[in-house]
Parts: sequence; structure tokens; C-alpha cells
Amino acid sequence: MLTRDVLADPVALTRALVDIESVSGNEAEIADRVEEVLPTRLKIERFGNTIVARTELGRPQRVVLAGHLDTVPLHDNWPSTVDGNIMHGCGTSDMKSGTAIALHLAVTEPAPRHDVTYVFYDNEEVDSALNGLRILADSHPQLLTDASFAVLLEPTHGLVEAGCQGTLRVLARTSGKRAHSARSWLGENAIHKAAPILQRLQQYRERLVTIDGCEFHEGLNAVRISGGVAGNVIPDECVVEVNFRFAPDRSERDAQDHVREVLDGFELDVVDSAPGALPGLDERPAQEFLAAIGQPPRAKLGWTDVARFATLGIPGLNFGPGDPNLAHKQDEHVEIDKIRECAVVVRRWLTA
Amino acid sequence: MLTRDVLADPVALTRALVDIESVSGNEAEIADRVEEVLPTRLKIERFGNTIVARTELGRPQRVVLAGHLDTVPLHDNWPSTVDGNIMHGCGTSDMKSGTAIALHLAVTEPAPRHDVTYVFYDNEEVDSALNGLRILADSHPQLLTDASFAVLLEPTHGLVEAGCQGTLRVLARTSGKRAHSARSWLGENAIHKAAPILQRLQQYRERLVTIDGCEFHEGLNAVRISGGVAGNVIPDECVVEVNFRFAPDRSERDAQDHVREVLDGFELDVVDSAPGALPGLDERPAQEFLAAIGQPPRAKLGWTDVARFATLGIPGLNFGPGDPNLAHKQDEHVEIDKIRECAVVVRRWLTA
Repeated sequence: MLTRDVLADPVALTRALVDIESVSGNEAEIADRVEEVLPTRLKIERFGNTIVARTELGRPQRVVLAGHLDTVPLHDNWPSTVDGNIMHGCGTSDMKSGTAIALHLAVTEPAPRHDVTYVFYDNEEVDSALNGLRILADSHPQLLTDASFAVLLEPTHGLVEAGCQGTLRVLARTSGKRAHSARSWLGENAIHKAAPILQRLQQYRERLVTIDGCEFHEGLNAVRISGGVAGNVIPDECVVEVNFRFAPDRSERDAQDHVREVLDGFELDVVDSAPGALPGLDERPAQEFLAAIGQPPRAKLGWTDVARFATLGIPGLNFGPGDPNLAHKQDEHVEIDKIRECAVVVRRWLTA
Repeated sequence: MLTRDVLADPVALTRALVDIESVSGNEAEIADRVEEVLPTRLKIERFGNTIVARTELGRPQRVVLAGHLDTVPLHDNWPSTVDGNIMHGCGTSDMKSGTAIALHLAVTEPAPRHDVTYVFYDNEEVDSALNGLRILADSHPQLLTDASFAVLLEPTHGLVEAGCQGTLRVLARTSGKRAHSARSWLGENAIHKAAPILQRLQQYRERLVTIDGCEFHEGLNAVRISGGVAGNVIPDECVVEVNFRFAPDRSERDAQDHVREVLDGFELDVVDSAPGALPGLDERPAQEFLAAIGQPPRAKLGWTDVARFATLGIPGLNFGPGDPNLAHKQDEHVEIDKIRECAVVVRRWLTA
């Protein structure tokens, strides 16, 4: 139950949200509970299981606080348990502790110094086509685009992780000609032809680039390879799936051009592409946020929904109490102190 | 029905055998039919669905004529049809036309110049553990080892294909360390580490070797490759399946040593190995066979059960009316002329 007492305590609220099961696709109940406790002073709109709640205080600037409501599938790690300073359970780290901080502030902070758009959304852990924030950005961009800065409460272990890297996935294919392996010279071995692809990836030197004081470390990797017909057949196809994680100073197009240059001479199909997000730390709300937390930012190296804000022209950063290394793991947990500490930081930023 | 008239005509007998369905594992009926028509002058023994029928004429030399009774699965290509000189159907080429020649001679040739051991066996088209000839060679080798030469009536399109190449299959593995692909430098990419394996295979120069006038062409090939965990994970394992087809002047051990030398530095597991068979064309029955056919031999480049005779110390060759390129194909067929022509050659050899 999301009682007044629970809403007043981000730790109790984290636990209450964790204990409402909300594996992606099953967010109706948690969205209902969130919607019914949001104060009427906010302008509340619901789209499926995504909820937008906006202060309307006439402040010169507006910021976004966003968190997703869903989790990856349970794995004998639900409901939550608490052991000293540790709260265990699916979603504790990714990211109900962060989402709890946003909901706690939405309910308990009537007068933030900037207008705030709170976004609670569904289907972050599954296919991008279902992502509630993506759908909202497509269907009602005006609910987001009047903000000048976004904080996504994804797990960062209480650090500021600014921007995010882009990601590009391509299939590099080689083709050949089948033949019986006892008469291999009648065929052309497509797996052998993939040798230079692997060699170029092995020899690739990754770029390090510093943007707004954040160091982004790129990576170009084969993540899957497959080829072969049968144990006695010269294979006529080999496919290498390559993932390029690129710094946000490259556009998606630049990233594609770069991979095409590295793998020049091979047939490439782009299967997936998402832009990075620049840190945007020169914006005033970002500077205020860094002042509130009192420590330097670092680059977010994974891809997060911060990039969705970036494509709307809204710089953003990741900041939350969870530990990103525990996300999606069976032993997912969060430090209770970290939840309190992060809640204090966000409130200090919004009220200083 | 295997009537006297049918048994007297290798073409009619081929068709009758094709029309007894005998996909591997289902050879009981065809074995029953074969067993009941074998003449009583032969010493007949049956082991499961494998039949051995031996002349006991006291000749100084003994030869083997062997054919398997099973086929690969039907593929809308059964029962047989005839169109002019072509008989279509599953098993026409591989190898009921050859098996029919052996059965035809067993029934119609009472006085061959060498004693003959006829072998009709099951499960050639499936796992080696089930192979009727292999089982016979293990359990009753004395029924085979008194022969000095073997003719296996596998499809060769009426040519003499002597000996056979050996085959070795190894898995070459690389290992690494998983990491999120957004932080790839924390992992070790096992797919990238496979680059030198593919490169060495690509650069490999195949050996050609001539033995008893037959040219054997070796081949060392990747036949399968797999690796990868997920689209965003640095892979911790890559496996390349390598098939070495080697000339019969190498032992299995030599072949393994050679592959270990080529792929030095990589973890290798042998998953499958079968020796080659030397042509053995200096044996008197082999010379007589070549004289009967009147054309030069060539090397058998695939692996056949001739190698099972070779491991018993019996040289052998492949000779049959079927077309090896049609084996296991939906449009499998045999030339009717070729059946007659090959039957004449084998009879000439046995009676000259």
C-alpha cells in the first residue's frame, strides 16, 4: 500500500514498488497505484501504462525526472527482502529505487525551483517498439520538449553518468559455394572468407574521447558468429554480428560510415542503430545538479533512454541509487543508504 | 516380388529392391526377401538385418562383393518410376542398383573363379555405431578376413574409384571473458581470437598425392563456426569445426598431428575420425578387375565403407552404376544402361 508514510520515505517506497510485480507487459497495477497517489496539484495524463505528471508553477525552466515501472523477469528474487543495509529483489537496483525517488518528490515537493515533468513509463526492458518513453516522445512530444534538461534515475550507484554512447549493430556476411568437403576445391569456403573481418576487429584500436569532462570509450566487437551447413559440406555463408558502441560526438550516420570503412569490401546490413547522447553539462540545470551532488561527472557507457531525450533536443544524465552491475542479475540489490543519499541530492537540486 | 525372372535381370531387380522401402532402421523386410532368394549352395548367415552369403568352392583366393540395403529418408521420390533410360527413385543410385548386381550374381553365378563373400548390410546411411558392416567386422571378422580384395558397389557411375580418403573432424576453441559490449575492454573477445584459425585455414595449401595411379586431393576446411552470447555481450567462446579429408598414405594419427601443427596454439578436440583406405591395386584380383573394366582407376574422394575393409587388411575399390552426385538428392536416379554395363563387368571379372 502506498500510504502517506510510505510515500514520505523513499526506502519504504522502493520496497513497496518492488513488491508490486511489474515484469514488462504487466505494469497495469503499478501504474494504477502510482496514478492514484499523485497529488492533484500536478497535471496528470496517462497513456497506456505510462504516466506524465507536470508541475504548472510558471518557472522559467522545466526539467524532467523519469523512471521506468517495469522489471526484467523474476528469477526467484521476488518479493523483496532486507538484510541490514541491503534490500534484495528484482527491480531494487534497476530501477524502482530511482523511480521511487521521483515519485517521492512528486508527492512531497510542492515548490521545486524549476517546473518538473515526472515521467513513469512501461516496457523499458523489452523491445524498443514497446518502450513507453519512446511511444510518448513520438505521440505527445510537446509534453517533453518544453524541458531543458532531464534526469533519468537509472542505476549509477549515486554517481552522475552523463550522456550515453550510441550503439550500432551490423551483420557482415561472406558468401561462397557449397560442395562436399571431400571435394572441397569445387566449393568456396565462406567461413574462411570471414578471416579478414575477425582480423580487422582484432586489430582495431578503440577511440577514447573526452566530452564535457566525461571520457567515452568506444568499442567495436563481433558479438556473434555463425556459419556452416553440415559436418561434410563446405559452407556457403558466414555471418558476423558486429556491435559498435560509439561516443556521442558521432552521429548514427558517422558511426555507420566508420564501420563500413573498417569492414570495407564486405556486405554489411544494419540491423539496429540508436544514437548516443551528448552530456550537455553546460546547461544551467546540469551545472546546478553537479553542484548539488558535489562530484565530477563521468560518461555513461551503456545505452539508456537518456538518448531518447537527446533526440528531442533535451540533454540529460543518469543518476540513481542502484548499482548498474547488478541490473538483470538474480542477486540484484540496492544499498538502503544510497537510496536516502540520492533522494537528498535530487531534493537539494530541486529546492536549493 | 523377387521372382526368378527378376533375379535374372539386374535392371528389374534394381527396381524391385527400390520398391521395397528400406529407409535406415527399416531393413527387416528387404533383408527377409534377400535371404529367402539366396541359393542353398551358399553358406548363409544373418545378423540382425545383415546377411553374409559365402561360396565354398575351395578357390585359392576369396573376394567380397558388398552393398548396403538401406536408403536415406524418402523425399517424395518413391516408389520408382522409369522414363526411357532413366530409373528414378530413392535408392536407385545409392545403392540398390549396385546391391542388385551383387544379388543378381549371387543367384545366377554358380562358379566364380574366386570364392565370393556376398555381404548385404543395414544402416549405412546413419550413425557409424549402427552400421551393419562395422558391426559384422567387429563381431565376426573371420567371415571377412579370409578375403584378399573387396568390391563395394557404391555409386561411381561405372568407373573404378579406388581406396578412399580419411576424414577427421576437430573442434578448435577459443575462450575469452564476457563483458557488456558497452564496456568491451573489461572482457576478452573469443570470436576475435578465432581470426588466426580462419586465416591459417584460408592460407592452407592442400596436398595432392598420387598412389597406385590414383590422385588424392586433400582438403582442410572450417565446416561450421559458432560463437556469441547476446547482441550486447562480449563473447567468451568461439568454436570452429574443422574437417580434414586426408589421403590414405596418412594414418589417422598422422592426420591429427598435421592438424595440430597447422592450428598450433589452439585448444583442439577430436570429435570424429575415420581412416582412409589405400587403393591396393597391386593385388591380383584388383588387377583382374581393372582388366575386366578396361579403364584406369581414379581415387575415391569421399569416405566409404571401403575403409572398413582396409582396417581389416583387405584392399578394396568402389564400383557401381549409380551417380555419386545424385546420392541423397530428391531427383536421385540411375541410368538403366549403366546397370547392365556394370553387371557385365563384374560378371566378366568373376568368370574370365
